[in-house]
Amino acid sequence: MNRRNFLIKTAVTGTTALFLPKIIKAAAPETALANATERYKLSKGNIILFQGDSITDAGRKREDEATPNSPTGFGVGYALFTAASILANNPDDALNLYNRGISGNKVFQLAERWEKDCLDLRPDLLSILIGVNDYWHTKTGAYKGTVETYATDYRNLISQTKKALPKVKIVIMEPFIIHGGTALDNTWEDGFAPYRIAAKKIASDNNLIFVPLQSVFNEALKHAPAEYWGKDGVHPTIAGAQLMAQTWLKATL
Amino acid sequence: MNRRNFLIKTAVTGTTALFLPKIIKAAAPETALANATERYKLSKGNIILFQGDSITDAGRKREDEATPNSPTGFGVGYALFTAASILANNPDDALNLYNRGISGNKVFQLAERWEKDCLDLRPDLLSILIGVNDYWHTKTGAYKGTVETYATDYRNLISQTKKALPKVKIVIMEPFIIHGGTALDNTWEDGFAPYRIAAKKIASDNNLIFVPLQSVFNEALKHAPAEYWGKDGVHPTIAGAQLMAQTWLKATL
Repeated sequence: MNRRNFLIKTAVTGTTALFLPKIIKAAAPETALANATERYKLSKGNIILFQGDSITDAGRKREDEATPNSPTGFGVGYALFTAASILANNPDDALNLYNRGISGNKVFQLAERWEKDCLDLRPDLLSILIGVNDYWHTKTGAYKGTVETYATDYRNLISQTKKALPKVKIVIMEPFIIHGGTALDNTWEDGFAPYRIAAKKIASDNNLIFVPLQSVFNEALKHAPAEYWGKDGVHPTIAGAQLMAQTWLKATL
Repeated sequence: MNRRNFLIKTAVTGTTALFLPKIIKAAAPETALANATERYKLSKGNIILFQGDSITDAGRKREDEATPNSPTGFGVGYALFTAASILANNPDDALNLYNRGISGNKVFQLAERWEKDCLDLRPDLLSILIGVNDYWHTKTGAYKGTVETYATDYRNLISQTKKALPKVKIVIMEPFIIHGGTALDNTWEDGFAPYRIAAKKIASDNNLIFVPLQSVFNEALKHAPAEYWGKDGVHPTIAGAQLMAQTWLKATL
């Protein structure tokens, strides 16, 4: 079998279809996922860091955070699934992956711990997912920030990072909601959209990799209800987390 | 772009290469993975059960085992990674997946809890990984079973299962060692091989799906040392667990 035929044969088996999820293809054609920027090419010894809030944290054990590639240090979320795939598929590269997401964080709280939890680790590839709490916590009145606060703080965080680590490649994951989730009311659709849009614009303005997630979850909901992907509309199930990981890999590497 | 060209294009991108791991391809060509038996075609409402020892258990919370698809009920091992992939990629099927692996189990200990932890769940697809303790525990003198004990007990377990659940599809995962692991000495290579071979023969004699893992880990060791895949030679890292999940998916679905 020549290479061309092998690839065709491989591509049409059931298993490969499993690895090329129909949801991601339907939600974001190749062109949309490809971004304006280049995908990242892994190199030997690369350090990869996942940063964010509870969606990234996913129950990780803080006491294990200093050990790269730790099964307990990653929690059970998209960061674990993404890290495991990267490690299994790039074993020649001796990669070191870390998760430093912290539940409840808003963008200004990332900034407060950025030196210790990002810059000191000197990541080559830095992935950030932040924004849902910047909106959510305003609903209770406890937090007074606006989308302008979010965007300004996020831009400053990116500037600071690029200044400290000129070679770092940054991945912005789109903050998203899973429509129909139990924690959401009908004010979220319009109320949260500006945060998503701000994150996307920051990625585009800075030539960063962007991982589209709202369109992916919207597409996913055509196949199964919110309970399947993330019951409360914010925190993904293992199905939702794996869908995020697959989207991340498709957009980034 | 027509379908043929789309598939070719997709198959040659870096991301897809990531999902068609070179290790698995090198270790077990399509033909070897395809088995004598048909792969399993998932149907709506299918129940999938993972059974085994600590490699399957992987730190799962026993108190969450009754909840299907639970992030904490799955531990952090190949069962989690396999389950998450299945769920993300088959959202129309309303699948229910369970993990009932228990650390330290030998095949006779699966048998002791089989009614409660397998038959009562009425799985449509049942995946079993057992054998390393059947050998390991003989090394300390605490356990007197032989490979014949293992094979007889395993055959009886399969017979019992097929009798109780005539439609169940059974997947036998090959017990394996990761050469160079800290818990292994040079008696393991020859001492453990008969257990691997017995498991493979039981699969073949009963027309079960077989997931080859020894050849996959042998191939993996050409790329990174035992520490990368499973430090003690028995318990996989997240890289090793993801490699197992990808092999399982390729052999089974």
